[in-house]
Amino acid sequence: MAGAVDFANIAQQFVKFYYEQFDTNRGNLGALYRHQSMLTFEGTPAQGADAILEKLQSLPFTSVQHRTDTLDAQPSSEEGGILVLVTGALLVEGSERPMSFTQTFQLRPEAGTFYVFNDVFRLVYPAA
Amino acid sequence: MAGAVDFANIAQQFVKFYYEQFDTNRGNLGALYRHQSMLTFEGTPAQGADAILEKLQSLPFTSVQHRTDTLDAQPSSEEGGILVLVTGALLVEGSERPMSFTQTFQLRPEAGTFYVFNDVFRLVYPAA
Repeated sequence: MAGAVDFANIAQQFVKFYYEQFDTNRGNLGALYRHQSMLTFEGTPAQGADAILEKLQSLPFTSVQHRTDTLDAQPSSEEGGILVLVTGALLVEGSERPMSFTQTFQLRPEAGTFYVFNDVFRLVYPAA
Repeated sequence: MAGAVDFANIAQQFVKFYYEQFDTNRGNLGALYRHQSMLTFEGTPAQGADAILEKLQSLPFTSVQHRTDTLDAQPSSEEGGILVLVTGALLVEGSERPMSFTQTFQLRPEAGTFYVFNDVFRLVYPAA
């Protein structure tokens, strides 16, 4: 199943790249979105690469580290889209305590690469 | 924006229905999947309504309650697909302690209704 290997590999490479960029040079993330892309960050929506980058740049922390704990991927469309679900932890400067998060992406193929069509981020608080 | 109201409403109705069925009559969930549907449950994949229902029925708890804490939805395709991200808590019989979970669905329209094309479920453990 070459296709199966591919979408899983692409998802892993994307997630690694995404959080590396997020944690070292957030301004680079704009290149991953298009005008039709959507972000919902903690319930706040943004549409289009410019608005999304503005939202990501405006987040109230300048230094942050993402840790990926789980990553699942599935084909999401006949055109080669990929659905990704990540869970992990976020360590923000000045805080000793990592916060759990979940993030889902839909990646869409474009000219030999992929861009982010859907992006939803949520912090996850302990259930008890 | 009638379309915007619609996808958010459909996502809410779907999630309410899905967890009600899950918690009261799990066998009904098979009707929400098709042969091309995919489930990844805690990293274990299943494809097709029959295999997915078998997986859901085989989960090692007979009594379970889902609580939905957050629900975000975005259009996922030009054909009317909807991406849904849920976070919440799971209370399993015999356990005092709720567990956090996250689940993402892609719903696809079909003859005036929707079915689940993608379904990924993960428990989320405290990050610290």
